Amino acid sequence: MKLAVDAVVFGYSKDLNILLVERKYEPFQGGVCLPGGFVLDNESLDDAVQRELREETGLKLNYLEQLYTFGSPERDSRERIVSVAYYGLVDRTKVKPMGGTDAEVAYWKTIEEVKSLNLLFDHQDILNKALERLRAKLTYAPIGFDLLPKEFLFSELEHLYVSILGRPIDRRNFRKKIMSFDLLEETGKKVSEGKGRPAMTYTFNKKRYKELERNGFVLQIF
Amino acid sequence: MKLAVDAVVFGYSKDLNILLVERKYEPFQGGVCLPGGFVLDNESLDDAVQRELREETGLKLNYLEQLYTFGSPERDSRERIVSVAYYGLVDRTKVKPMGGTDAEVAYWKTIEEVKSLNLLFDHQDILNKALERLRAKLTYAPIGFDLLPKEFLFSELEHLYVSILGRPIDRRNFRKKIMSFDLLEETGKKVSEGKGRPAMTYTFNKKRYKELERNGFVLQIF
Repeated sequence: MKLAVDAVVFGYSKDLNILLVERKYEPFQGGVCLPGGFVLDNESLDDAVQRELREETGLKLNYLEQLYTFGSPERDSRERIVSVAYYGLVDRTKVKPMGGTDAEVAYWKTIEEVKSLNLLFDHQDILNKALERLRAKLTYAPIGFDLLPKEFLFSELEHLYVSILGRPIDRRNFRKKIMSFDLLEETGKKVSEGKGRPAMTYTFNKKRYKELERNGFVLQIF
Repeated sequence: MKLAVDAVVFGYSKDLNILLVERKYEPFQGGVCLPGGFVLDNESLDDAVQRELREETGLKLNYLEQLYTFGSPERDSRERIVSVAYYGLVDRTKVKPMGGTDAEVAYWKTIEEVKSLNLLFDHQDILNKALERLRAKLTYAPIGFDLLPKEFLFSELEHLYVSILGRPIDRRNFRKKIMSFDLLEETGKKVSEGKGRPAMTYTFNKKRYKELERNGFVLQIF
């Protein structure tokens, strides 16, 4: 029995994207899958997933959260390989993935694009589980801000929710609710969106959120 | 590297209890730990934890949820053993654990009692993680009812929350909130508690909850 780690890294720019790699070597050379690989003997699981991500895509994430462990005896045709899956979020505009050891190339794909790629092993199941977790967490934790640039338009935040949840939201209530938390700060800078009037950009006050959270505050967006 | 599964089984009767076993064989003979053991070659993780639980304690749970995978290289002094931990809930009055293969005896202990037992390996960490998950989930999912008998007094439900959360709750608001969900049904039977007047017993309408849940309802107790 062997132990592996795999990473679902979500990036966002207009749409939700997932970081994928193409395998450099046999078996499954050229196949597309999530970045990941075997855990070394003296390495923690958290260290292993960071190392694999770095080696295969050049990315370093501040935070990867353990998602679920996939251990069906049939998940890999080679031998019994159990995989501890992690997920993480990045501002896509900040990072440029590249191939490395074991991976020929690394790139971002939208959820729609992934569907036609036939990911290797049970990686589509892993991705689906991560998506489920992301959607659930988006409604009670401020993780959407990790996907946006530091300064963003309110319309960008709204679009992120619509895009990730995959359903329309009540725009007026959404704005009212988000603003009621008093967690967004105006930057004083306005930006033009398309043909519209310049709109205010915001930053998320993480420090204030952490304080509120310590006092039992729960973000309930819907 | 070896793969194990471990189970945190919570039972409740006046206090929260955890199911523990005493090891029958060396190494660590007589040591106290969570029920669990190695995953067999052709067995899924879910099957493995159910088998270990049955073999070591005689218990069969309808549902065990994957909690977290513990993989620190130092967690077992013998060799590298990664453990996929699960947790589950039972009505303690319904089940009587017994020892079996690998386990000399199986018994329930309260959280307070566990503290002085010095659980083997990192099993106290696993238990702490499960407790954290249980406390969080209690506030947004109706899992408390899995710990109670089918028919219960409202005071028993209230005491369960106080006991597991480990803090006092606003009794009046709690009752108002719980009743507002319209998920408790009067059984028509009254039971005497101590010296007080007989009080109504209730059942939890799981079917109705499932319906509400499908329509996006989220139980927000606090």
